[in-house]
Amino acid sequence: MKVLITGIDGYSGWTLALHLMSRGHDISGIDSFVTRSRVKEVGSHSATPILPMAGRLKAIENLQHKTIDFYRGDLGKWETVRDVIRKVKPDAIVHLGEQRSAPYSMIDVHHAVETQCQNIASTLHILYAMKEEAPEAHLVKMGTMGEYGTPNTDIPEGFFDIEYMGRKDRLPFPRQSSSWYHWSKVFDSGDVMLASKIWGLAATDVMQGVIYGTRTPEITSKELLTRFDFDEVWGTALNRFCVQAVLGLPMTPYGKGGQKRGYIALEDSMQSLTLAVENPAPKGEYRVFNQFDAAYSVTELAELVKRVAKMEYGIDAKIQNTYNPRVEKEEHYYNPHHENLLKLGYKATRSLDESLVEILKDLIHYRSRLEAKRDVVMPRMDFRTSDNKQSLHIKN
Amino acid sequence: MKVLITGIDGYSGWTLALHLMSRGHDISGIDSFVTRSRVKEVGSHSATPILPMAGRLKAIENLQHKTIDFYRGDLGKWETVRDVIRKVKPDAIVHLGEQRSAPYSMIDVHHAVETQCQNIASTLHILYAMKEEAPEAHLVKMGTMGEYGTPNTDIPEGFFDIEYMGRKDRLPFPRQSSSWYHWSKVFDSGDVMLASKIWGLAATDVMQGVIYGTRTPEITSKELLTRFDFDEVWGTALNRFCVQAVLGLPMTPYGKGGQKRGYIALEDSMQSLTLAVENPAPKGEYRVFNQFDAAYSVTELAELVKRVAKMEYGIDAKIQNTYNPRVEKEEHYYNPHHENLLKLGYKATRSLDESLVEILKDLIHYRSRLEAKRDVVMPRMDFRTSDNKQSLHIKN
Repeated sequence: MKVLITGIDGYSGWTLALHLMSRGHDISGIDSFVTRSRVKEVGSHSATPILPMAGRLKAIENLQHKTIDFYRGDLGKWETVRDVIRKVKPDAIVHLGEQRSAPYSMIDVHHAVETQCQNIASTLHILYAMKEEAPEAHLVKMGTMGEYGTPNTDIPEGFFDIEYMGRKDRLPFPRQSSSWYHWSKVFDSGDVMLASKIWGLAATDVMQGVIYGTRTPEITSKELLTRFDFDEVWGTALNRFCVQAVLGLPMTPYGKGGQKRGYIALEDSMQSLTLAVENPAPKGEYRVFNQFDAAYSVTELAELVKRVAKMEYGIDAKIQNTYNPRVEKEEHYYNPHHENLLKLGYKATRSLDESLVEILKDLIHYRSRLEAKRDVVMPRMDFRTSDNKQSLHIKN
Repeated sequence: MKVLITGIDGYSGWTLALHLMSRGHDISGIDSFVTRSRVKEVGSHSATPILPMAGRLKAIENLQHKTIDFYRGDLGKWETVRDVIRKVKPDAIVHLGEQRSAPYSMIDVHHAVETQCQNIASTLHILYAMKEEAPEAHLVKMGTMGEYGTPNTDIPEGFFDIEYMGRKDRLPFPRQSSSWYHWSKVFDSGDVMLASKIWGLAATDVMQGVIYGTRTPEITSKELLTRFDFDEVWGTALNRFCVQAVLGLPMTPYGKGGQKRGYIALEDSMQSLTLAVENPAPKGEYRVFNQFDAAYSVTELAELVKRVAKMEYGIDAKIQNTYNPRVEKEEHYYNPHHENLLKLGYKATRSLDESLVEILKDLIHYRSRLEAKRDVVMPRMDFRTSDNKQSLHIKN
């Protein structure tokens, strides 16, 4: 199949390109490299040394004798998006090209507006370009499990059958996000749902759990590494715990640490996205996949990192619960469903324990890169504050 | 109280300013006059001849010896919003300053992106400016009943108690909008809800039904008239039916005409907004009001206009159901709740029949203004099309 990946330079984007190519698909991609510059903005960099795109493309040619049809461009520009989709005429578009950090969106008013407007505009541009240039294509849109928040009930996959005051309907499950970023993904979901309805587009909205890992079978050499963020703004809690352990810093679960979320290994997330691509939604259908393997609390993650670090690498990591910069429930019920991918044949291949051994190994190997950015790992910002530029040392 | 009205030059904004002043409140307002230019963009104008803002302000001084503290500015600009709120230090902000037309948002990709980004940015700017400059103020935010769509169940006011798979919670009622514009209001609701939660802001989110009417007791002379739109893009179905009747054109319910919506008289909408302003939500509370009086189907509206036009003005109006440019259910259950305003003392004062007599009288009086724009009343656009510029004769 012809697959266009937006955000192909990113953590998932690059890994997905490698994986889909290994399965024989033709890959096109677009990226503006904005994540690279935004990570710089908060004084950080990827733990793994990643090549610039030109180097990545050359490495694929040299190592795998394959090519990616790459476009440098901003999804916020209509003409760019339309021209690429017109040219590529993809069978599937995997839309990963959005601002993906909740803390980044909470830095100040400008980061809030930028996150929401850029994410919405990119998705609207893709929907309009599909309608006009590739109406038979299937959109696989990256959303987040964070769209649902933490209701005191189970979380279905997108829709649920309810009875309310004696009448029944199948309705979208209520969304309750906890950052401007997470809301931007809810907004996208609304727009994609509407586009399916009025234009008959086919779409899979992926409610993605937190992804962990540095490796997939296709990352066969240093030149093919994907990025791995660990700073307060761009790194996940798990990534930061791993880096804190390696640097001898205390691991810092926010608040009580009872916040539960769904997690999935990088390799299995690629498996899932590939299942979505290779089993497209029928024309006019908007379907939702909850894409994660298992739920862990932040405390459970920290304890697991502590155990693996000790057992495998002799590291004595400490856990030090800290002020919670987020406004969220710190103890709650959490039971999201995830049946849709299983029905397509999904099978988890990587456990968290196993991945942690590998992640820590890579981080120990690149320890000097972590040392160089030691000051951006510990938490400094606060969602209750409307201007976090100073605490993050962001200029102007 | 000190009340800041955003979008004070608009249909509701101007009327609300007059009404709140009559109750002794101090009024500040901001507007960029963008509705005036957007209505021009589709080749139309207000049925009522409205003065430019300078004339309006002078008329109030001359006729009522009152002043409005007016700012010309764009809510899409952060510094503008912050500076106005810093200067005014309002007790209440009534945020009416958004793009308010569903068809406008469906013209093409640019109108879609403009609608969603401008509406979201304006609300985010107001929320951040409240947090930083007026954290004790109460936000009354204009939303729309259209956020809910037409589920096959009752529609509560914002939140509902559900039991799902044996567990209970109180959750936001699912939103299912049918245009980019309506989704932009859902997005705002999410953002306002989050700002209340993380910053403790007080907010009332008004799910506004369709407003009808040309008059309130405070519109005591021609100089104080508010706008009344009747073209396909900016006018409501009811407004267009009235104008079609006056011009001898057939009234054009879309499709089967069974689409039911909630309606409220202009005067009673002002009563409702005033109740919200004078009975603010407590700090940190996000509350939702469904603001309408009675639900009518489009066919019922057309028949009512036909009857009143005949009885009062001897006009023989025809009804001619037409192609539905929207993608929506044309026959459906509709029972939204509206108790919250009643609890604050709301009492309907104007019936639809009574208002129609008055609307038709004004339209007959300004008939030549309608004649001049005869070609923008009948439907030409289609939500199923991604580019409606040509059918609307919009240049570039």
